[in-house]
Amino acid sequence: MKLYSMPSSGNSFKVRLLLALLGRDAHIVSVEDDSPALADAKQTGRLPFGKAPVLELDDGRLLPESNAILHFLGRGTEFVPADPFDHAEMLAWMFWEQNAHEGVIAVRAGIQHYPRRRHLATPERLSELLDRGHEILQVMEDRLSDHDWLAGGAISLADICLYAYTHTAGERGGFDMSRFPGINRWIARISALPGYKGLLE
Amino acid sequence: MKLYSMPSSGNSFKVRLLLALLGRDAHIVSVEDDSPALADAKQTGRLPFGKAPVLELDDGRLLPESNAILHFLGRGTEFVPADPFDHAEMLAWMFWEQNAHEGVIAVRAGIQHYPRRRHLATPERLSELLDRGHEILQVMEDRLSDHDWLAGGAISLADICLYAYTHTAGERGGFDMSRFPGINRWIARISALPGYKGLLE
Repeated sequence: MKLYSMPSSGNSFKVRLLLALLGRDAHIVSVEDDSPALADAKQTGRLPFGKAPVLELDDGRLLPESNAILHFLGRGTEFVPADPFDHAEMLAWMFWEQNAHEGVIAVRAGIQHYPRRRHLATPERLSELLDRGHEILQVMEDRLSDHDWLAGGAISLADICLYAYTHTAGERGGFDMSRFPGINRWIARISALPGYKGLLE
Repeated sequence: MKLYSMPSSGNSFKVRLLLALLGRDAHIVSVEDDSPALADAKQTGRLPFGKAPVLELDDGRLLPESNAILHFLGRGTEFVPADPFDHAEMLAWMFWEQNAHEGVIAVRAGIQHYPRRRHLATPERLSELLDRGHEILQVMEDRLSDHDWLAGGAISLADICLYAYTHTAGERGGFDMSRFPGINRWIARISALPGYKGLLE
């Protein structure tokens, strides 16, 4: 099993984090932004939707999309609830992450971090993303202020998925995390899990 | 079972379409954009993420996110593949829909359709969304030029999900659909399914 993974990206980190928590190994192919390895992976058809992460099975089949990879690897483990409603609620958070959260929380970090995107970091855009980001983080805070985990009664893929960009939202994205004590407790809870490996480990 | 549904929105249509194909009923609560019904649903806490669609179970539990609702309703039916890889591939298309497709294909239609968003439809933005939309539709065309369905060997939730905004991409979004014969055949295939109901039916 091979994982095409962008070292600096939260979407790739999610998958590495789940593998670490499950104690599973994969051969990691690092495809950093603007690297020859990324260009090569694209050219040889390894990235069906044009981006990392992608999981390559031993028989050569390719699976794109971070959250679909999480679901594939998480099947049958404690990270996927057996109860149909809890399972659907987990997926709801994961679709919300791709639709609402990532396009603001990750994007505000990304346009400041990656040289090729820095021209997008205008004061107007940064200010708009700051306001929208605080609204989005408040949705998580509303849940986490009185629950340990996002979906159902236990940790699930929803937590792994949303942890990726949320735990760096202050440092990389410039969001004011002191407003969100429930999120901060949840971040501490995840980073203390047995087997945990950080973004740059 | 109650469905809070925005009549003009593809995300709500997906769920109504799956219900029609499954021959299942739900009490539909129409919450059109800018309507008092939408404001009321928000105020009474019926829309956990602030938007439709939301499924309300008979016991009052609420499930947001169109694709999570599809997954919940589709469980155990022909629309959810039993094979783990096919299942993950179905989810990959559904996450891609929320992350890449909807923010371009639906947004180009939405900013021209909804009066409140029309100020966003500048010539520059429309032109950028047109180019990006054609690239995105090409990803679907690459698959559908030689496959009947998006994931695995049979129809799945991925097809229902991506049909919603794709089948109106020409008329509402202004995309040039004559470039995509595979997509057009797939649209015809879905709209001929037994039980099919269109967006405005």
